[in-house]
Amino acid sequence: MPETLLCPRNLAFELYEVLDAEGLIQRERFADHSRETFDAALDTARSIAENLFAPHNRKADENEPVYKDGEAILIPEVKPAVEAFLEAGFHNASRSFDEGGMQLPNLLSRACFAHFQAANIGTSSYPMLSMGAAHLIEVFGSDEQKQRFLKPMIEGRFFGTMALTEPHAGSSLSDLRTRAEPAGDGSYRLKGNKIFISGGDHGLSENIVHMVLAKLPDAPPGVKGISLFIVPKYLVNDDGNLGPRNDVVLAGLFHKMGWRGTTSTALNFGDRGECVGYLVGEPHKGLSYMFQMMNDARIGVGMGAIMLGYAGYLYSLDYARERPQGRLPDGKDPSSAQVPIIQHTDVRRMLLTQKAYVEGAFDLGLYAARLVDEEQTAATEDARRTAHELLDLLTPIVKSWPSEFCLKANELAIQILGGHGYTREYPVEQYYRDNRLNPIHEGTHGIQSLDLLGRKLMQNGGAGLRQLLGLIQDTCGRASAFGSLDALRQPLEQLLARLTEVTQALLGDLMAGKVNLALANSALYLKVFGHAVIGWRWLEQAIRAEQGLAKGNAADVEFYRGKLQAARYFLTWEVPGCHHELELLARRDDTCLEMRDSWF
Amino acid sequence: MPETLLCPRNLAFELYEVLDAEGLIQRERFADHSRETFDAALDTARSIAENLFAPHNRKADENEPVYKDGEAILIPEVKPAVEAFLEAGFHNASRSFDEGGMQLPNLLSRACFAHFQAANIGTSSYPMLSMGAAHLIEVFGSDEQKQRFLKPMIEGRFFGTMALTEPHAGSSLSDLRTRAEPAGDGSYRLKGNKIFISGGDHGLSENIVHMVLAKLPDAPPGVKGISLFIVPKYLVNDDGNLGPRNDVVLAGLFHKMGWRGTTSTALNFGDRGECVGYLVGEPHKGLSYMFQMMNDARIGVGMGAIMLGYAGYLYSLDYARERPQGRLPDGKDPSSAQVPIIQHTDVRRMLLTQKAYVEGAFDLGLYAARLVDEEQTAATEDARRTAHELLDLLTPIVKSWPSEFCLKANELAIQILGGHGYTREYPVEQYYRDNRLNPIHEGTHGIQSLDLLGRKLMQNGGAGLRQLLGLIQDTCGRASAFGSLDALRQPLEQLLARLTEVTQALLGDLMAGKVNLALANSALYLKVFGHAVIGWRWLEQAIRAEQGLAKGNAADVEFYRGKLQAARYFLTWEVPGCHHELELLARRDDTCLEMRDSWF
Repeated sequence: MPETLLCPRNLAFELYEVLDAEGLIQRERFADHSRETFDAALDTARSIAENLFAPHNRKADENEPVYKDGEAILIPEVKPAVEAFLEAGFHNASRSFDEGGMQLPNLLSRACFAHFQAANIGTSSYPMLSMGAAHLIEVFGSDEQKQRFLKPMIEGRFFGTMALTEPHAGSSLSDLRTRAEPAGDGSYRLKGNKIFISGGDHGLSENIVHMVLAKLPDAPPGVKGISLFIVPKYLVNDDGNLGPRNDVVLAGLFHKMGWRGTTSTALNFGDRGECVGYLVGEPHKGLSYMFQMMNDARIGVGMGAIMLGYAGYLYSLDYARERPQGRLPDGKDPSSAQVPIIQHTDVRRMLLTQKAYVEGAFDLGLYAARLVDEEQTAATEDARRTAHELLDLLTPIVKSWPSEFCLKANELAIQILGGHGYTREYPVEQYYRDNRLNPIHEGTHGIQSLDLLGRKLMQNGGAGLRQLLGLIQDTCGRASAFGSLDALRQPLEQLLARLTEVTQALLGDLMAGKVNLALANSALYLKVFGHAVIGWRWLEQAIRAEQGLAKGNAADVEFYRGKLQAARYFLTWEVPGCHHELELLARRDDTCLEMRDSWF
Repeated sequence: MPETLLCPRNLAFELYEVLDAEGLIQRERFADHSRETFDAALDTARSIAENLFAPHNRKADENEPVYKDGEAILIPEVKPAVEAFLEAGFHNASRSFDEGGMQLPNLLSRACFAHFQAANIGTSSYPMLSMGAAHLIEVFGSDEQKQRFLKPMIEGRFFGTMALTEPHAGSSLSDLRTRAEPAGDGSYRLKGNKIFISGGDHGLSENIVHMVLAKLPDAPPGVKGISLFIVPKYLVNDDGNLGPRNDVVLAGLFHKMGWRGTTSTALNFGDRGECVGYLVGEPHKGLSYMFQMMNDARIGVGMGAIMLGYAGYLYSLDYARERPQGRLPDGKDPSSAQVPIIQHTDVRRMLLTQKAYVEGAFDLGLYAARLVDEEQTAATEDARRTAHELLDLLTPIVKSWPSEFCLKANELAIQILGGHGYTREYPVEQYYRDNRLNPIHEGTHGIQSLDLLGRKLMQNGGAGLRQLLGLIQDTCGRASAFGSLDALRQPLEQLLARLTEVTQALLGDLMAGKVNLALANSALYLKVFGHAVIGWRWLEQAIRAEQGLAKGNAADVEFYRGKLQAARYFLTWEVPGCHHELELLARRDDTCLEMRDSWF
């Protein structure tokens, strides 16, 4: 059977040859683990994903949730899949043993979760959103809130959502209008409307805990006046039992191009004036709490984009091996047999491009997950801090690069399948539709580009950036030991040198207050910076492949050759193409900035 | 009301300022026409498209044709729309007055038809396919076939299809297996299965005339053994009345990602051994007949891609003007009003990119239509021949460039609408899904790239290529009269110089028999060649805009400024980015060619 979720050999390469998952076992927190326990968790994830998530991926797409009597009704296959996920404990994969978790490194819990995202992004979203909401309460909630809401979330009885967007406040959260009035008893009464709330209703759990951003009466304007509230669908009594229905109403469902298995809801809070909410942490700090969770959520989105790309790549690869069509340019004898289309160079180009995109992004996504482990469990405070700084810088790339390029991979997968790929009888068109959401939610592409250039580069005095440049140089240094990698290393070094110059110039403009001009072409900057990062990760993979080849294990030779070829593709086909965009950035090109509204 | 189909000012610019539609009126064939009759035809097309095609575009997407008792059932709105189209005579727009046509130039009939494609690509496909089938009979059929089948097609009573693809023969038509045996009475009996036959059943007409490729018993192998047959759904008696049902069975419908309004059918020919067909023209020449019609069909596909891009651009432009969200980087005061998103530079970038893609491609599509007029009605045989040679060369670009870049435009339109753009409550996601078919049908992107590099460049001894290079140089020469255009002209000249060198080198390889290496990166070549062509068309538009500005009509200033800015975007942002791809082509990069199947 061909691989359909991800390639286990590549996963092992990432975990054990590139990202040193075994090194984590040396740490106290993971001391009870071993490569065997890691692999057992991965096998369980794979098995549940294949057997319970993948089989209803298409059905969920074709039968999107329906609104009925104030509830969202899902197809019946979702619940047993999610229950198996919960029963196996994947929603608590990184939690401590004493909290009922598996105490796995984040690297491993991400790798486990990747299987569910590849198998069925829609169904995987329900636990993912819930894990994000639980994490917020865990870090910022009171003990009582943890007891009342977090505990049943850990037990898998309550699910959660993130309720941020409003009709007039999407990218611009400072403009949200939902209000929260103190009720006098320590609780609050909320009033407002939220849209695009994923998992806002579903019937998969006893209760849904909405994490809602709203403004207190004395809120200062803007982002510093937003508070975070717990608003449960059902109130929870002191004994933990469910109380009456809270005044949160499912106002309707959005009908999306893809990702249809996940309900996207409009929720009305306080239509009857009785919507009870509980303030989390301090007043007016809600958005900063959300932002502290953002790295995690954005890695999650990036991984989702990667896994959709990965699933499409594997499917189109298998198809290209099986499908006979045409003959090679130098073998046009029509009486000869047709060749499998993988033999056509242009089909190989489309497969190699997909491989370079999805495996490059997969490496980065897991690298980011590994940084979370460094952030949390590295031996020294200094190491934990530097990991955090680097992760902060990389987060916009981890979120946005796969959203753009793994979507492109899906586009190529359709193209390889041709007319068949365009039909719903094959899975690749769904991956493409599903993936199109990723450049939009959890901060659009444009927002990510402003975040990177306008904020992250300079954060912590530029420490993250200095660190990244040092790491890339270190990789280049190690690559120079392999003469075979010269042609791969040099384009990266050239890009890095020019990117460094251009970055300094743009930061200079920003510090001089020329914000509009400096940020005008932030989308180009995001693309080039992302290509430099992925180029770096490919050079790192190429080094590991050379090291693997040197070990002389015959069974692995073709795998490593493929890695080297994909690295070559990315570093010689994609990376050098960025110099033109750097040139536009360097000269502060104002073509878009100067375009007038009335000229369109 | 905002424009939703295409911008009338831009259409007038193309017809009357760039492509000299009025010059055609000097020709005998169009002597009864005038700018007024042209505009009247365009107005009629616009009105029917807006009133009868656009309103059911979404409904047809949501209610795709269903298979019932051997028939494909469409929503009821399609028929009156198509009837109004036929009644207005748009299927005969270019036919002579004495055949019941409007005797319009091809340029005008394409421009009229563009409105229907923008309004509803699915419904517009039925007449478009029918027009293609009619054209085949008109050019290659016998007088009797014309009387029996073409006449009712011209009258709008019969529709037609093109039945080429089979399960094992898509891109590789030489492998098709449908057989045709002589029946002894001059007719043939066909047996075989066809798939992806658009409009293969629909209930919009009294009869459907399938133009079927099949092999005769004595057929030589390969493309030179394919014959063309007329296979009607209902046989036609000598008196023109319908006879019994022919042995053509609707075996099923394909369910597509987009373009859902058009039935995509599986047809079985001769399950009962009684499928009657009539040979068109000579035996074994069917594919060459099809190819002679190909330019026309491929311009049609290109125009469809353009119009989907155009409709998305206009919708997202209107949305960006209306939707308030956020503040500019230098105006972050949260108590100030939100700005319409068109004021954000990155949104302007996405709009300007769309404008550059769709208006650049629209110009090329109409330019190609104008070449058809030259081909048919230019004064001298020499002029008709050179028009034909140039059109042959440009056809792969006209088909493939919009299929790739106007799809990208649709992707940007979704991005501008954000979460809303991803929902089916807004039209842009449908344009994106519809447009994804265009790089696949009527010759995939890969096929187009091989056609361009492996065949078209050298066709007629390279006459088309020499002509194109001369035309681009001519445009550059005229542009040099405007100092303001220097920065736009120079990147095109630089690209052209390098493209010419690389082209010569690749053709040298081909002539030396190094076919696999020379064609390995044909997709890159197609992209660069396409960018050179679109860059040329933008420089031409820029000249016309400068000329328009010089006339000093105040009402037009902003329109021309927009043209110049879009030209600047394309020629300075997009064109110079092609040098890296040319470099890969120049060095015969073998990264994809050398990738082994077992390395994936």
